[in-house]
Order: sequence, then C-alpha cells, then structure tokens
Amino acid sequence: MTVDLNADAGESYGAFTYGHDREVFPLVTSVNLACGFHGGSPGRMREAVRLAKAHGVAVGAHPGFPDLVGFGRREMALSPEEVYADVLYQIGALHAFLRAEGLPLHHVKPHGALYLKACRHRETARAIAEAVRTFDPEVPLVVLPGTVYEEEAQKAGLRVVREAFPERAYLGNGQLAPRHLEGSWISDPEEAARRALRMVLEGRVEALDGGEVAVRAETLCIHGDNPNAPQVARAVRRALEEAGVEVRAF
Amino acid sequence: MTVDLNADAGESYGAFTYGHDREVFPLVTSVNLACGFHGGSPGRMREAVRLAKAHGVAVGAHPGFPDLVGFGRREMALSPEEVYADVLYQIGALHAFLRAEGLPLHHVKPHGALYLKACRHRETARAIAEAVRTFDPEVPLVVLPGTVYEEEAQKAGLRVVREAFPERAYLGNGQLAPRHLEGSWISDPEEAARRALRMVLEGRVEALDGGEVAVRAETLCIHGDNPNAPQVARAVRRALEEAGVEVRAF
Amino acid sequence: MTVDLNADAGESYGAFTYGHDREVFPLVTSVNLACGFHGGSPGRMREAVRLAKAHGVAVGAHPGFPDLVGFGRREMALSPEEVYADVLYQIGALHAFLRAEGLPLHHVKPHGALYLKACRHRETARAIAEAVRTFDPEVPLVVLPGTVYEEEAQKAGLRVVREAFPERAYLGNGQLAPRHLEGSWISDPEEAARRALRMVLEGRVEALDGGEVAVRAETLCIHGDNPNAPQVARAVRRALEEAGVEVRAF
Amino acid sequence: MTVDLNADAGESYGAFTYGHDREVFPLVTSVNLACGFHGGSPGRMREAVRLAKAHGVAVGAHPGFPDLVGFGRREMALSPEEVYADVLYQIGALHAFLRAEGLPLHHVKPHGALYLKACRHRETARAIAEAVRTFDPEVPLVVLPGTVYEEEAQKAGLRVVREAFPERAYLGNGQLAPRHLEGSWISDPEEAARRALRMVLEGRVEALDGGEVAVRAETLCIHGDNPNAPQVARAVRRALEEAGVEVRAF
Repeated sequence: MTVDLNADAGESYGAFTYGHDREVFPLVTSVNLACGFHGGSPGRMREAVRLAKAHGVAVGAHPGFPDLVGFGRREMALSPEEVYADVLYQIGALHAFLRAEGLPLHHVKPHGALYLKACRHRETARAIAEAVRTFDPEVPLVVLPGTVYEEEAQKAGLRVVREAFPERAYLGNGQLAPRHLEGSWISDPEEAARRALRMVLEGRVEALDGGEVAVRAETLCIHGDNPNAPQVARAVRRALEEAGVEVRAF
Repeated sequence: MTVDLNADAGESYGAFTYGHDREVFPLVTSVNLACGFHGGSPGRMREAVRLAKAHGVAVGAHPGFPDLVGFGRREMALSPEEVYADVLYQIGALHAFLRAEGLPLHHVKPHGALYLKACRHRETARAIAEAVRTFDPEVPLVVLPGTVYEEEAQKAGLRVVREAFPERAYLGNGQLAPRHLEGSWISDPEEAARRALRMVLEGRVEALDGGEVAVRAETLCIHGDNPNAPQVARAVRRALEEAGVEVRAF
Repeated sequence: MTVDLNADAGESYGAFTYGHDREVFPLVTSVNLACGFHGGSPGRMREAVRLAKAHGVAVGAHPGFPDLVGFGRREMALSPEEVYADVLYQIGALHAFLRAEGLPLHHVKPHGALYLKACRHRETARAIAEAVRTFDPEVPLVVLPGTVYEEEAQKAGLRVVREAFPERAYLGNGQLAPRHLEGSWISDPEEAARRALRMVLEGRVEALDGGEVAVRAETLCIHGDNPNAPQVARAVRRALEEAGVEVRAF
Repeated sequence: MTVDLNADAGESYGAFTYGHDREVFPLVTSVNLACGFHGGSPGRMREAVRLAKAHGVAVGAHPGFPDLVGFGRREMALSPEEVYADVLYQIGALHAFLRAEGLPLHHVKPHGALYLKACRHRETARAIAEAVRTFDPEVPLVVLPGTVYEEEAQKAGLRVVREAFPERAYLGNGQLAPRHLEGSWISDPEEAARRALRMVLEGRVEALDGGEVAVRAETLCIHGDNPNAPQVARAVRRALEEAGVEVRAF
C-alpha cells in the first residue's frame, strides 16, 4: 500500500517569503510549485525547484488565477480560452526550470480558487485538462474525486490522481466543508494523522455533518502555509509509515 | 545567398493591441514573440503562435525586463541570477504554446533594454546565454555582432545568428546610432530596402558619422511596431528577392 | 433642460494605446478616467488629466477590478473590504493628478465588471459608496438607476447621477441587454442619437424584448473605445443641442 | 532637543507579510508606508494606516519604483516624467487612506533604489520634489543630507528633514557605506543606540574608512524589515530618552 504526500509550495515572491518550504520539503514526497501568477517569482521558482531536487521530491505545476494580490484565492470569471492560455503559460514557465535542472514535470494541480472552480464548473475543468493534454498527455492531473473536474480530466485521456485533505473536514456529500464552518479545519497534527490513516487504509473518514464519507486518497495534501505544516506533515508521515503504508510519489 | 527577415511581434496584451502582426507576419520569415513581461499576455501569445503557424513563420522567444508599463524599454539593475531566471521563465512560457501547436522553439532574441544591456554588460549577456543553454543548447541566439553579448553566446556553445537593422543608422564603430540622434531612424521603405541590400550583398553600409561600417547580417530586423512596418517589410523583401537573395528563416 | 455626456477614457497603459481620447474629449462634457488597475498607467493618467483640462471636461475616477490583463471586464470575488480598499486607492491616485493640475474630482463611476457587479450585489455597491464617502462625501456617484447600487449610494448619503446608454439596448425590466444578444449594441450614430434624445426628452426608449422602458438619464455614456465613438458622440451631441437640450457636466 | 524615529513599513502585499509592523509601530514616531509599487497592497495599506492611527504615529508616503518582484531595490532607468507620475500616483493613493481615517500626509520619503538614485541623479530628485510640490507644497521631504536630492528638494521650496541611519556605516565622505562592504551594517542594538546618540547629540559618528563624519539627524531611520528591528528601535529610543532627547515626529 502506497500514498503520496503533497504540499503546495514555492509560493514566495521576490522579497516576500511565504510558507515553510525548507521545513516541509524533507517531509513530503511531491510538491506543487507556484508558477508566477498567485505566487512564485522566477527567482523563487528556481530556488524551489532546486530545493525539491536536493530532497528528491517530485515536482508538479500549481497554476492559479492571475491574481497576485489575492493569492489566487478569489474566483475570477475567466473564459475557458483564458483558463487554457493561463494554465499553459504557467506550466511552460515551471517546466523550463525543471528542464534546466534535469527534472521531469511530474504532475499538475491547479491552485486555490481555480482548483475549486474546476471542481464545479465543467468548462473551466475542461480548459485545464486541455492545457495539460496539449502540453504533454502523459502528465497526470491531481483532482478532487467525485467532481466534474475529475470527469473532464478523464475525458481528456489524462491520468488522474485523487487527492484527500487530512486537515480539512468533509461533508457527508463528499465535498470539503467550507472554511467558515466551525470545525472545518483540523489543526491538531495527531488528529490530522489519524484522519489520514483512515483515508488511506479504510477509504473513509468522519463527516462534519454526521456519519461517514468515502474518501479516495492517492495523494494527501498538507497545507504548506500553515504555521504548523511541518508538524502535520511529520505526524501524518509517521502514522502512515508505522502502519506499513509506503509514502512515495505517485 | 540567403537571409532571414525577423520582426518583434506578439506584443499585444489582453485588450491592448500593439503592433501590426496580421500585416507583418505574411512578409517576414521569423518572429520574436513577447513572453508576458513587456507585452504578450497568455491569450495574445497563443494567438500570435497560431498566426505564425498559419503563415509558416519560424517562432523565437523575445524575453524582456519585467516592466510591462515601460514596455521593457527601461534598463533595470537586475542581478545575473535574476536575468537568468526571468529569461528562463519567459522561454518556457512561450515554449508551452509552441509545444501545444506542434512547433519548435526556433531561436531566442532578448527585447529592448535587455538586448541593449546584454550588448555591453557581460554578466547580463552570460546570464541570457546560460538560460538558453540550460533550456536547450540547440536553440540559437540572435545577437548584435561585435558585442560582449555575441561573445558570451559563443562561449556558452550556442549557435549565434547575427542581426542587422536596415531601419536604424549605424555609427562608424559598428554600434547602432542612439535614437535621439538626427538621422538615426530610416523611415523611408525604399531607403531601408537599399540599405538591407547593401548589408546582405556587401556586408557594409554607410555610417551616420561618416564613412562606412561593416555589418554582418544573417537576419534583418523589421520593427513591427512602426506604423509603416508592413511597407518596410514589403520593400526590403522585394529588393532582396529581386537581387536573387533567398529570404528564409535561418 | 440639461444632460451630461460622459465617456470612459484614459485607459491607455504605458506604450499601449487604448481608445480615442483625442477625438472624444472635445465632444463630451465629462470623462471617467482609468486609475491604473484595468488601464491608465501613471504617465497616461497625467496625460489624460491634462487633455481633459485643455478641453474643459469634468474628470471623474473610473476605478476597476485589479485585472489589467482582463481590462477589468472579468468579475472577481472580492470581499467588500477589498472592494473598499481598491476603490479608495484608485480614487486617491487619480485625485493626485487632478490636484497637481488644480482640478476637482468631479465624480466617481466604477468600471466594467465592478460596475456591473455593484448593480446587483449589495455589499459590493455599499463598499464602493463607502470608499467615496470616506474620501469625500461631496463627490457624486454615477449609477445605473433602479439597482441596488443606486440604493446603496443614496443610503451612504451621496449624490447619485443616473446614467443611460444610448448605444446599448435595454430590456423591458430596465436592465441593459446582455452583450451577446442580437441587437444589444447600437452602432449606428444616428440611431444612437435618436435614442439619446428619447431618453432625455421622454425618459423612455424602446426595449429589445418589446414595448418601452423608462430610462432616467442625467448623464449619457458614450463608449470611448468603440471605433466610431467620435461619430456617435458627435451625432448624440448635435441631436441634443438641436433639440434645445444643454449639454454640460452635471 | 528632539529627534524623530522613522521606519519603513506597510510593505506587506496581500497574503504576503513583510516586516514587523505590529512590533515596530509602538516604538517609532513616524512611519513611511509603501504605496503599492514595491509593496503595500490597498488592503495592507489600509491596515497599516489604521495601525499608525492607533499608535499615534505620523504617516508619510514611501513611493518606490514600479517593481514589486524586485521590492523597489533595483535601479530603473525612468525618465523624470515617469518618476514624477509614479511618485504622484503613489502619494495620492496613500493620501486617500489617510483622508478616510482623518489623518494628514505627514511627509514623503522615497524607497530603496529610488531614494538612492535621487541622492545622486539630479533629474530624478527634481521629479520627486516636483511631484510633492504639485501635490502639496507644505508636505516635507525626508532627505539624505549633502546630496543633490536635498538640494533639489530645497530648490522646489519644500521643507527638508535630514535623515541619519544608526544601523548603517558611513564613509568619510558622508555617504552610506555600500551594503557589500564588511562592517557596513550595524546589527547590535546597543551599538546602533550608541551611534544614534552621537548622531543626535554631537552631529557626528565614526566613519567606516577611518576618522569621523558629520551627520545631520532630524530623523533616525530604523529598518523595519530587519529581524531585530524591534530590539534596535527599543534600544535607540531608550538611549535617546535617557539622554534627555525628546523622541517625537518632526
């Protein structure tokens, strides 16, 4: 039994440092690196790619909306053509740094509001999948299972890798609980680790609104910008390994 | 005898249209496409790549300083590491659109103030060459001959393609005459065509400050943002072809 | 009887020219100048303010979403606090150029997707009104009548100036017809002029979906980025003046 | 005897936090707030203005080059017209937040590479002074004494406030020692405090290259982005107050 541990990273921008890359990279098996639109200036992208190389971590692109001031967390009414072009641009930019370091592009995972919009807006999902497909049809997309985003990635013929969130509460319908709900965020590392284990071993976890919910987890996301991200990553990883789960990039 | 005719293009940005791509592309054999920093939004880059494909024009990357409001025409004190990362980022971004359309990256030519700085600042030139080399050592760099930029491109083991400017006056020392000098700009298409012919056939042209100057021209640059760019391109191309020079991408 | 003729303007950005300011300014009585977020670089703002001064045209601020590449035409999910801060920032920036030229800030009119969102999203409207009120409660807001935007502007104690669009078709419910509808756009200058006249003299105009619709017009908007904006402005102005309507800033 | 203690602040940008505003504001008497170009998004500007208001700290504008990714620390070849427009724009933007909070614009102090360029490039200095003068001739400029920047500010009729840097080494010629020189940076709070005291009481300090240098200090700059900025500010303030110097805004 194996699972990947991924973290959003490389989100620093010029003189602005964001997240905890140096602490988190040794603990995860893949990273999703910002590509300049919501974070990730060229110099910081190069730095993050090299850090990933040094730690043997697989690198994916983490394209976002063109909204640096909003950190890509504000939904934008982009046309599918605009989503396609923005995602393709960002994938290419990151790919250049990988190529310069002799690394492959391991996967793509959209960021923030773009990810969330893709989960419920079919044209956006299709445009993202199309950007990846026309760039390289062998590159997998990390998806939230049970969404139109997963469907469109599969329709495009891409390999999909299902993601689960041990730090986020789920609703009974399989959706992530909105962040404003009480209890939507699990900040205790041990509790996150316990949930991660259930997700991987049992394929399910407790729902915030009662009962249980099926969760398909080929990769577990650690939020690298949380103050306690290193603690969470460490606890999740240890729990998985103690249970005999191999933690490695998909 | 052959020569390439290149134009800076793809510099429109979102709703802002710049230059005369639709008129110029049918007349040139290669284009240098903006990559988002001084012009060239993702959607406009895609459009320009497709236009080039439709006209069978070779496409190079045209990376500039990160200065959209200044159109990359204002020198910036970037460190070599910053130049390297900015150029690599932009090459990669354009390359993604080429890849999606099944086109190769034909060459790289820096834009505006970055080009001019590379011609006289060795570390900047080296950083540009290094970005191209680590991305793909087979991709040629378009250079101004007789500069440290040409030297560094060669030291990096890259193929260099020498560029001449039929619309720009030269000084006796081989440098381009500064734009504020009277006569530094040749706006008459026929005069530009006559100069282009001398450059290609004789390897020399009249200098603004008297005498003649040797000019090595493997590609001739047409300024695509001039109001009369199409007329100049047409006149230059006709003059070359009538003289038996084959106009084709290097 | 008087009416104002306003145009969105000052939307050029650095080397990128947008719209037809030099042709339009002599024909209108007020302009809404971009403030840097969707267009309007500092240099171009200064230029536009001086042009307005030269023509005796009243100047308002035209704040938009922070989306240069999308020209402020793509809705963004900004919080009310973000709308407030973005609008206040832009008003202040334009105000500085006015102050330097000895001109008052005549009014505020939001741009593009921000205007449209304000018309149907109360919190956005309230945040815009609040930004104007805290900057200067004497500055009027240009509004689309019959919207929550008008309501919130009035609740904030601001003077509202109702705007009508002679170039845009209306629906029977008083809303502007969406741009994708056939007939939603009136490009014939004489037809626009005829509609402008009905709006001002009769307070009504034909609806696209049949019947008539009441239109309250204290200012008429001319779209300055239309290729035929000068013709439309000229035709509308002439029709109004020939009918004895005084065209002047509110 | 009085002196002001100033710190560059408000440089956070959206989700990116920069500096130590909450720790530093209670310790200084004036702050120079970023205005959006090198840092300081609208939301963060509002936050910083309110923080200053809560602590009774005087607020100045801190305009920089339009270079967010370089944090305004990279010299740019802007024309005087561009400097003028960029500075005026930024002053106006900050002023709007002050006006909304009922605070005056206390002063202007350029940031980073713009400040340094103004010190040795007369046209740049003149453009900055002109922007302040046309905005409000009563607003003082914080200057480095003995520079063309000080001269041009005075020629424009502005009040100048001389600044000294207790954390930075000086050369015998009165200039700041370049940051790459060993010993150019004083990181020990007590040593910075000792130097601050000499500057204020004696008007001189030891030079890095031997001997002493006259230093005129109406305001002392604390670098708010240093990890130990709060310690330095505290030590400097205590030393001054214990010596009977009144620390208050100019």
